[in-house]
Amino acid sequence: MNIFGHNFRLAIWGESHGPQIGISIDGVPAGIPLSAEDFEADLARRRSGARGTTPRREPDIPQIVSGLYNGMTTGAPLTIEFANTDTHSQDYATVARHYRPSHADLVAYHRFNGFNDPRGGGHFSARLTVAFVAAGVVAKKMLPPGIAFDTRITEIGGCTDPARFDEVLRAAAADRDSVGGIIECRVQGVPLGLGQPFFDSAESLIAHLLFAVPAVKGVEFGSGFAGARMRGSQNNDPLLDVEGTTATNNAGGINGGITNGNEIVVRAAVKPTPSIGREQNTYNLATDKVEPLTIRGRHDVCVALRGAVVVEAAVAIALANFIRH
Amino acid sequence: MNIFGHNFRLAIWGESHGPQIGISIDGVPAGIPLSAEDFEADLARRRSGARGTTPRREPDIPQIVSGLYNGMTTGAPLTIEFANTDTHSQDYATVARHYRPSHADLVAYHRFNGFNDPRGGGHFSARLTVAFVAAGVVAKKMLPPGIAFDTRITEIGGCTDPARFDEVLRAAAADRDSVGGIIECRVQGVPLGLGQPFFDSAESLIAHLLFAVPAVKGVEFGSGFAGARMRGSQNNDPLLDVEGTTATNNAGGINGGITNGNEIVVRAAVKPTPSIGREQNTYNLATDKVEPLTIRGRHDVCVALRGAVVVEAAVAIALANFIRH
Amino acid sequence: MNIFGHNFRLAIWGESHGPQIGISIDGVPAGIPLSAEDFEADLARRRSGARGTTPRREPDIPQIVSGLYNGMTTGAPLTIEFANTDTHSQDYATVARHYRPSHADLVAYHRFNGFNDPRGGGHFSARLTVAFVAAGVVAKKMLPPGIAFDTRITEIGGCTDPARFDEVLRAAAADRDSVGGIIECRVQGVPLGLGQPFFDSAESLIAHLLFAVPAVKGVEFGSGFAGARMRGSQNNDPLLDVEGTTATNNAGGINGGITNGNEIVVRAAVKPTPSIGREQNTYNLATDKVEPLTIRGRHDVCVALRGAVVVEAAVAIALANFIRH
Amino acid sequence: MNIFGHNFRLAIWGESHGPQIGISIDGVPAGIPLSAEDFEADLARRRSGARGTTPRREPDIPQIVSGLYNGMTTGAPLTIEFANTDTHSQDYATVARHYRPSHADLVAYHRFNGFNDPRGGGHFSARLTVAFVAAGVVAKKMLPPGIAFDTRITEIGGCTDPARFDEVLRAAAADRDSVGGIIECRVQGVPLGLGQPFFDSAESLIAHLLFAVPAVKGVEFGSGFAGARMRGSQNNDPLLDVEGTTATNNAGGINGGITNGNEIVVRAAVKPTPSIGREQNTYNLATDKVEPLTIRGRHDVCVALRGAVVVEAAVAIALANFIRH
Repeated sequence: MNIFGHNFRLAIWGESHGPQIGISIDGVPAGIPLSAEDFEADLARRRSGARGTTPRREPDIPQIVSGLYNGMTTGAPLTIEFANTDTHSQDYATVARHYRPSHADLVAYHRFNGFNDPRGGGHFSARLTVAFVAAGVVAKKMLPPGIAFDTRITEIGGCTDPARFDEVLRAAAADRDSVGGIIECRVQGVPLGLGQPFFDSAESLIAHLLFAVPAVKGVEFGSGFAGARMRGSQNNDPLLDVEGTTATNNAGGINGGITNGNEIVVRAAVKPTPSIGREQNTYNLATDKVEPLTIRGRHDVCVALRGAVVVEAAVAIALANFIRH
Repeated sequence: MNIFGHNFRLAIWGESHGPQIGISIDGVPAGIPLSAEDFEADLARRRSGARGTTPRREPDIPQIVSGLYNGMTTGAPLTIEFANTDTHSQDYATVARHYRPSHADLVAYHRFNGFNDPRGGGHFSARLTVAFVAAGVVAKKMLPPGIAFDTRITEIGGCTDPARFDEVLRAAAADRDSVGGIIECRVQGVPLGLGQPFFDSAESLIAHLLFAVPAVKGVEFGSGFAGARMRGSQNNDPLLDVEGTTATNNAGGINGGITNGNEIVVRAAVKPTPSIGREQNTYNLATDKVEPLTIRGRHDVCVALRGAVVVEAAVAIALANFIRH
Repeated sequence: MNIFGHNFRLAIWGESHGPQIGISIDGVPAGIPLSAEDFEADLARRRSGARGTTPRREPDIPQIVSGLYNGMTTGAPLTIEFANTDTHSQDYATVARHYRPSHADLVAYHRFNGFNDPRGGGHFSARLTVAFVAAGVVAKKMLPPGIAFDTRITEIGGCTDPARFDEVLRAAAADRDSVGGIIECRVQGVPLGLGQPFFDSAESLIAHLLFAVPAVKGVEFGSGFAGARMRGSQNNDPLLDVEGTTATNNAGGINGGITNGNEIVVRAAVKPTPSIGREQNTYNLATDKVEPLTIRGRHDVCVALRGAVVVEAAVAIALANFIRH
Repeated sequence: MNIFGHNFRLAIWGESHGPQIGISIDGVPAGIPLSAEDFEADLARRRSGARGTTPRREPDIPQIVSGLYNGMTTGAPLTIEFANTDTHSQDYATVARHYRPSHADLVAYHRFNGFNDPRGGGHFSARLTVAFVAAGVVAKKMLPPGIAFDTRITEIGGCTDPARFDEVLRAAAADRDSVGGIIECRVQGVPLGLGQPFFDSAESLIAHLLFAVPAVKGVEFGSGFAGARMRGSQNNDPLLDVEGTTATNNAGGINGGITNGNEIVVRAAVKPTPSIGREQNTYNLATDKVEPLTIRGRHDVCVALRGAVVVEAAVAIALANFIRH
């Protein structure tokens, strides 16, 4: 379903080349000040422009079409829309039947009996994350004061030295190729007690949302996969006080599915952009053969660059679901 | 919430040392043959006994108390219960206030204002996975014919050579320590088309369930975290035919959140059992000090050993949610 | 689905002649004192015994099998079970294929492809309301203090004079017939503000639950159907103060889907028990003909008598869903 | 929540005097032909114009902003918006604090801590039913072929003779008063088997939706409240064949919560329009006194007139929720 959540419920819609992307949010308390400006900082983080991002330019001006009155949320559903303006559908004409590797095109075609909107990936496009980021902005406003997000790219194309990221991107672009990355989101100040033991653990909701984000193929908390290679005596986090402060944080701030008051640490593995300029051999429906394909259009060298704020939004939305108003 | 799913909906309950663990399943079609014997194979995989597993012995005989008539499901809620018999509550008396590192005890205490059942972890206990495995058995019966699960431990304590697993476990046990592991579940024969683009991707539902399983701290599909270190030209899966067969399977059988007809490959990172026999310094509420704690009781050296069938159940349950009857 | 609710979520199961009826409740806050005795008063109101009720006798002793520790709710799912003991399945042998008018037998047969449990109505039996009443008891404990329920039968077989109810029942019984009734539930002390404008109005949730109760065929609030025959000047409730006290209460305590602080007034129309001793002509699958049927077995002359506490439970459960903890 | 449904899920938003009313529908299968023209007939039934309806004129042109491609549904969320154009917010300036009897204004004020949008009832306005009717049009397209709706006003102001309805309306208008009405919806051709025994009976879902419609205060199926005054021998519907055809239809086409293949018959009691031109005494926050209020603005003499298609939409949406695709 394109609907998520209990206390903070989202309905999302739109296609890459349709008239708009939108989201309607249920469960926003009345009386929160909100304006289009509040979205600007996070939307700018998602917007393209830096090296390694697509030249598609969308102004991304949020239209708040319900749930706001005199600059304050009303408690009724808050709906936010973004017009699609910079669409070049003709770029996709040739790929419509010559299927791009690791895209959802063929799957979407079969899943929806050929009726899917194929332009720019349609409803599968990462363009929908603009609405997701907007929901994250609203979610952050609902969290208790004192919560601070720190989200960054910790790895690009296997390189863990931020000083060399630009070089890695440049090299991939020169090869008309792309690179993957790892995004780490840390959240300080999250109160102990958010989450349910079964089935709605804090990890479950965060991961559910992260795996809805296109290109995310892995999620780990705290020591994660590295922890699975440790012994208990190394991975355990000794408690220091009755508030639950721990000496280490291999749990990533979550025990038994519930936030434990320490910093939340979550990482998302983002695959390399599947659209690359290099020629690839792949199935062509028009000829019923595997043939070389050269993808044109405008693409990110590394989608993880713009994905950091999307990952942060997912974490914020999950946490907002555990807050009762 | 302790309820999950749309088309195949689960409600789970119980505590480690309460009278029973149970699960009620909504959405099971009428007319599926089912008996207690059908659960035996998977329950045996979860049951302890092998090296590295707890000596707690539960017969785990499923009582089907609703939804079954003349050996066939009726379409009404199917409810399955497991009596708890081998409970040693006294083992936990000393740990009730001297908090075990990396357990949910303190978090549960605060989350439920001190009213949680602390015996054996209460509702947070991995004992609940007995019901989860039972639901997995039912889920598998609902999947289309031809689906085959192959789930195994690919890593224990950092060792990737199965021939040496026993040695690794023996060494950890000798040190009164524990080890983590990585479980890989592969599913062949899954039809193309299961999942939703947003928010209920196949990955989202599988990960949601996996992160509800105690001790799981990481989930990845296909090339996962390794793929995030690759270039697009390495990670892309070229298409070979109109059915969507791919030359490689770095996507782990899922594109755009939807199964693509290739093998599903998912891995879960399982942390080392937090209960270890070695002395650990941790907070004691009785003295309000950090003091050495030696945990008694019966514990697994490596919970991943018994976790393989639990991971498989999570995947089966997620897939069953996408099947319409 | 056999699952209902957001903040106070119920999963119900069981069949009339199966081993048990059960309910698992999610969303019960920790720290509420609860014991089997708390259920006695409401279960007694539902239990048979008075004139006009079935001679089937069930002790109805609630078994609390999860979510309770040291006499207090733990915050984990609260599960309550009732054993079925006094089942006479042989009574139903003859009706299995000679379909009783206005019962769900034939519908259940088709709906579940012939795999439904037909004994005593199976999952369709009013026996399930024992669990529903138990959930109502828990719901009442979650409501704010000062709420008082007053539920009564206002009409039996068209007679509105309680002094004559016994006479009406006696006459129907003498004719081996049954009668319907109208149940009115009034709730004082409900705070202003429970409910959502769209779709989860207070009326929507109450009616949703009431129409899940077997035999309920009508629901109205305040002046209800009579109000639809009035003019606005008659039906309007003038406001008297800023708290929202109204001079009249034709709204039945709900405006715009939200409780308005006045008394809630809801009425349920309960159809006459369909099982009657009088001979009826109805379809017989065995002969493929319409033939006279005489129903044996044990039945209520007027199910509304035992239904009052069930209606009250529905209202309590709906209100509990609007309370945030 | 402002979200409803399982298989056919709706999210609704908007305010009477905001920029738009919208609805996003999840669960619409791919490949259904759809255009703005398809909505015209039902929207016209809801639109004002006839005697007894408000002079507010909205063109009500549906904008389909997602989920449609080349005139066919895509399987992605279908979102439909209606611009609000003919808003006279100044009409409501005086009533903002001098509370209109039987309106949601004061309740909304308290419920949302004074942050609700009060203009024209805001999110509580019957204006939202334009989106609800649009969803009904989509729902009807999803139902199996051969289903026919017949919805009409059976009573206005207590008058059951359609020939005299105009007279009743004229008299009420002359008195600057309003009248209530009763709407009956009959649906032929509904297949046997839609609905769940507990909690999602066909009656439960239909009633849930009907009670979300502003002004509906009563719902009954088949003989409803009249049936509660009968004996079983009168109210029972004898079965005539194995398909479940009944000699009478006092059940209104639903047994045990499940459609039985006979005609569905449901009636909704609609209260008289609370806004009347006659002077009413009611609380004024500005003076903290009960004072005479004369409501200006534009109002329906009988909202039931425009409500018939809204009731029909509710029934169609409920039925669509039971269809699996």
